[in-house]
This record gives sequence, C-alpha cells and structure tokens, in this order.
Amino acid sequence: MSEMKYCFGVDLGGTTVKMGFFQADGEVLDKWEIETRTENQGENILPDIAAAIHAKLAERGVCREDVVGIGMGIPAPVNKEGVVNGSANIGWGYKEVKRELEELTGITSVIGNDANVAALGEMWKGGGQGYKNLVVVTLGTGVGGGVIVDGEILVGTNGAAGEIGHICVDYNETDKCGCGKTGCLEQYASATGVVRLAKRRLEGNTDETVLNMDSISAKDVFDAVKAGDKVAIEIAEEFGRYLGYGLATVSAVVDPDIFVIGGGVSRAGEILFGFVEGPYLERAFFAQKEVKFALAELGNDAGIYGAAKLALS
Amino acid sequence: MSEMKYCFGVDLGGTTVKMGFFQADGEVLDKWEIETRTENQGENILPDIAAAIHAKLAERGVCREDVVGIGMGIPAPVNKEGVVNGSANIGWGYKEVKRELEELTGITSVIGNDANVAALGEMWKGGGQGYKNLVVVTLGTGVGGGVIVDGEILVGTNGAAGEIGHICVDYNETDKCGCGKTGCLEQYASATGVVRLAKRRLEGNTDETVLNMDSISAKDVFDAVKAGDKVAIEIAEEFGRYLGYGLATVSAVVDPDIFVIGGGVSRAGEILFGFVEGPYLERAFFAQKEVKFALAELGNDAGIYGAAKLALS
Repeated sequence: MSEMKYCFGVDLGGTTVKMGFFQADGEVLDKWEIETRTENQGENILPDIAAAIHAKLAERGVCREDVVGIGMGIPAPVNKEGVVNGSANIGWGYKEVKRELEELTGITSVIGNDANVAALGEMWKGGGQGYKNLVVVTLGTGVGGGVIVDGEILVGTNGAAGEIGHICVDYNETDKCGCGKTGCLEQYASATGVVRLAKRRLEGNTDETVLNMDSISAKDVFDAVKAGDKVAIEIAEEFGRYLGYGLATVSAVVDPDIFVIGGGVSRAGEILFGFVEGPYLERAFFAQKEVKFALAELGNDAGIYGAAKLALS
Repeated sequence: MSEMKYCFGVDLGGTTVKMGFFQADGEVLDKWEIETRTENQGENILPDIAAAIHAKLAERGVCREDVVGIGMGIPAPVNKEGVVNGSANIGWGYKEVKRELEELTGITSVIGNDANVAALGEMWKGGGQGYKNLVVVTLGTGVGGGVIVDGEILVGTNGAAGEIGHICVDYNETDKCGCGKTGCLEQYASATGVVRLAKRRLEGNTDETVLNMDSISAKDVFDAVKAGDKVAIEIAEEFGRYLGYGLATVSAVVDPDIFVIGGGVSRAGEILFGFVEGPYLERAFFAQKEVKFALAELGNDAGIYGAAKLALS
C-alpha cells in the first residue's frame, strides 16, 4: 500500500464546481470542473460532487482511506459546524453541508465560505505566501473578503467575517447596494462599481476621453488609465479613494501584514496600488501605515487550493 | 509545599498601576495600586512593578515557583513578543517589556495592549461571559476596542487590532481627532466626543433644555436624556448613530456574537442601547443583525482580570 496521502479541494460556484485532487504535500494532481445543478433547491449538488470524487479515486486507483479530507468553499456564510442558512446562488436553504458530504463520501469534510477559503489559498500558495495575518480582497462582480489571523480563517459567529464589501465608505450615497444598504464598498470597488463610477463621471461629460459610457467595463477604464486618459484616471482615483478608505477601516479592526487584491478588477495589475495607497495612508491609524499590498496570484484556482489547505489543516 | 498556584494581573495606566494577586482558579486575593512614575522615560515603572510583586509574595509567604505568570496590559500597541515601539502616556520609547519584566521578576510574563486585555477580562469574568467572539468597546476619554476571536485576543501585526476608535464614521468631518485624522468614531462616541456633539448642538440653541454648554459632561447629557430633555435626546441620537454605524462596520469585518460596552460613558446604562441598536441595524450586513449588546461589568478591574487571564492562558 502507498504511503502517499491525498485530499480534495472543491470550489462550489453558481454555474460550475471547480475540483482539485491534491497530494497532501500540496501538489495538485488534477483539476477539473463539473456543472452546478441548481434546480430543485440544489439537491443534486452534493451527490454530483460525491460522484466526481468517487470517480476520481477509481480512475487513480486511490482508496478512500488514503484521502485525509475534503475541503470545500461555498458561496454563503457557513459556520464552523459546516451548516448554511441559505445560499441564493445555488438554491440551498438550511443545509448541514459537512454532515451530508461526509455521509455521501465517507470522507472527513471541512466547509468554508468561498471568499475565506480563497484567502487561505492565497496565503498558502499565492500572493500572501510568507504572511500569517492577511486580508484578501476580491474585486469581482461584488467585493468579497477573507481575513486570515495567525494562519487561520477568521470565520465569525455567523460565518460572515470578512464581508468587507459591505463596509460603508460613503454615508452620503443614495444609490442602493445589492444588499439593500447604501454606500457599501462594493458599490465603488467591484467591477460593476467601477462601471457605475465611470457612468456617473461620463454623464454629460465634455472632456476628451476614449471611454464610451454606452459600452464600458472596468477593464476599459484601467486600459484607458494606462493610455493616460485623464477622465479614466479621475475614475480610477475615485475607485482608489473608496477602496483605500475601506481598507484603512479594515486595518483599524484586524491590523493585517498585507492586503492581497484579487478578482477581475485586479487584472489591471500593480497600477491599482498607485490609486489605493495614498487614500489608505490618509485614513490609516498611525501604527498601520506600513501595511503591504500585493496582487493575488492564483486567479480562479485560489478556491481549490484554499479548500485543499482547509482539508489538510 | 502548597499545591495552590498563583498569578499577577497588572494594568499599567498613565497615573497609576493597578495590580491584582490571583489564585490560578481566578479568585482575586488582593487588589492594590501603585503610582506610575513616568519621569526619565518611565525608567522606574517596571522596577516599581517588580518590587511590588516581590513585596506581595513576601507578605503572603508565597514562593516565586508557585506563580505561573504575570500578565500586564499597557497603554500602547504591543506585539506578541511583548515589544512596544513607544507609549506617549508613560514615557517609553522602544522597549522589550516582556524580557525586562521577566529579568526583574524571574517570572514568565505576557504583555498585551490595555484595551485588548480589558476585553479578555470582560469575556472571562464580566459582561461577555459565555461568549468566545466578542468586541469590547470602551467609551472613555477616547474610544478603545478589544477584539476576541475564539476566546483569544486578536493582536494584529502591529499590536493595533481593535483600534475601532479610529474607524472613520463621517467622511465630511472637518474637526481633527487626536490622532490627526478626521471623522474618527472617537470624535463622537467618547466622553469628550459626546461633549463635542453637545456643544455643537447647543451653539446658538433656542430650544428648551437643562443642558448648559459652558459646563457639560457626557453624564450631564445622559442624565438629561433620562429626564426626557429633548435636546439631550437629539445629542444622544447623534452619538448612537455614529456608534451604531461604527459597530456595523466592525461586524462586517469580524462578525462577533456580542458587543460589550464599557468606559465612563457606559455608566449611563442600558439606555444607551436604545440609541445604538437602530443605527446598527440600519447599516449591518444581513447575517449580522442578531448581534447582542451588553454592558461591561468589571469597570476599572477589567484590566487586572484580563491580565490575570493572559497569564493563565
């Protein structure tokens, strides 16, 4: 019998489930995806994942006893017992995810919130390597966050720590966030938020710019910034001001070593930091001005790496 | 030889050092104070504390070997190695506090930030008993905070986690906080902050009120609230709005079970919660609306209890 041990890292999303089969030393042996079947309150999701795991073990000739665990990130707050109280994206109501997945697979499972799990992945193998206190900020359709303290995910009472997209950074805002509140960081620093800022700026604009408010993405804005477009630079400054202010607030609470910035907006690259650092320093508590900024490195794989790390911990 | 073990809890402040001598089961045997001699960069402070500890052991006939540790809270950010980089209140510059105190006493010492240590005390023996995820908010001359996650102090990279008095809750503020920034929670929710809000409201006021802007304290404001004074109620509403907004931000980051409110302003009692809870709910992320609020119970003793707990951990 082999001495080698294995684990699975699973990243459950609204359209696909990303899966990784890992050696216990962290080397990934296989990555693949299956469909997320959300119909009927998502009743097929866990059986589909279990079937994929069993198929992979059969394909590889690995027996279940050599698998130390399954880690899984899911798009909902989840408590330490692996229980969720509803996840709109995938159709679940109350669900004992850990218990069900363990019953289906016979393998110890650890469940975490997807943003938190991705943060763990970035600490382990990505932009946060070498640090134990980090905050991963994911600037995607929304703004997600994951807080790692002393190498472990800060889960929170309701599994909702690190919800930094819903920190208020503008108490004068009148537009509503998807969460129903106003002035959330997500309204300015997500990909959709950047587009919103751009449209506001371009409304009735007479200054010269390559940007076209009828067809604009966050990428368009930052591409224009790189080309020296002054209007785009103003939009990026506004984005950076809100994000910098929000991160100064996060520092006041958890005082991290480093912010690791990921998600679609972060593909703009290090140019982002030039817009964020100034406002951060303006609002940061004196002891927290030396914080570092880095780009996330694992992209869409952060979730499976973090889930594997969760299984191995 | 006795089987009983002991510890010391020390709360170092700018004018006095509060000291407690505890049994390892948490019972306090003695509480007393000594002067904080801040002259000459505070060079006498640690020797004075060590002398007080030696004297107490001699008085009690306890030998050093039966003391499991000394815990101490100090008014400065301090890292996990017990090193501070300056504390204006007591005259210290860079100081290896843990090492020096251990050399002076021969007893293992653990050093924490005073607000964090007081939070640990409230979890152990005060308003946060029974909870493992709590945030203690101290509304005194300033606003201090201590974040406890899974029963342990969240220290932060620079020892400055929980600096929630310096979260920005008003980006339009023009008055400066003591820290040099503007719009800090401390400018509205500390005892001095409440007075500032009161003076703003009373400037040119023509409405009937018992408040007198030439001689006013936070206590005056809340006493007037209890008497039904409408102007005082408006001031308390403004205080509560800022505090509720700030705590909603804290929840988004660390998602606690409970906020434990202490410090001089909290002597107004549970009436405070009526002003804080509405604004909290208005700004809190949906998963965090069930958070609890409680009053701190240990008053000035929170620091020595928390320090003792630190020594015992």
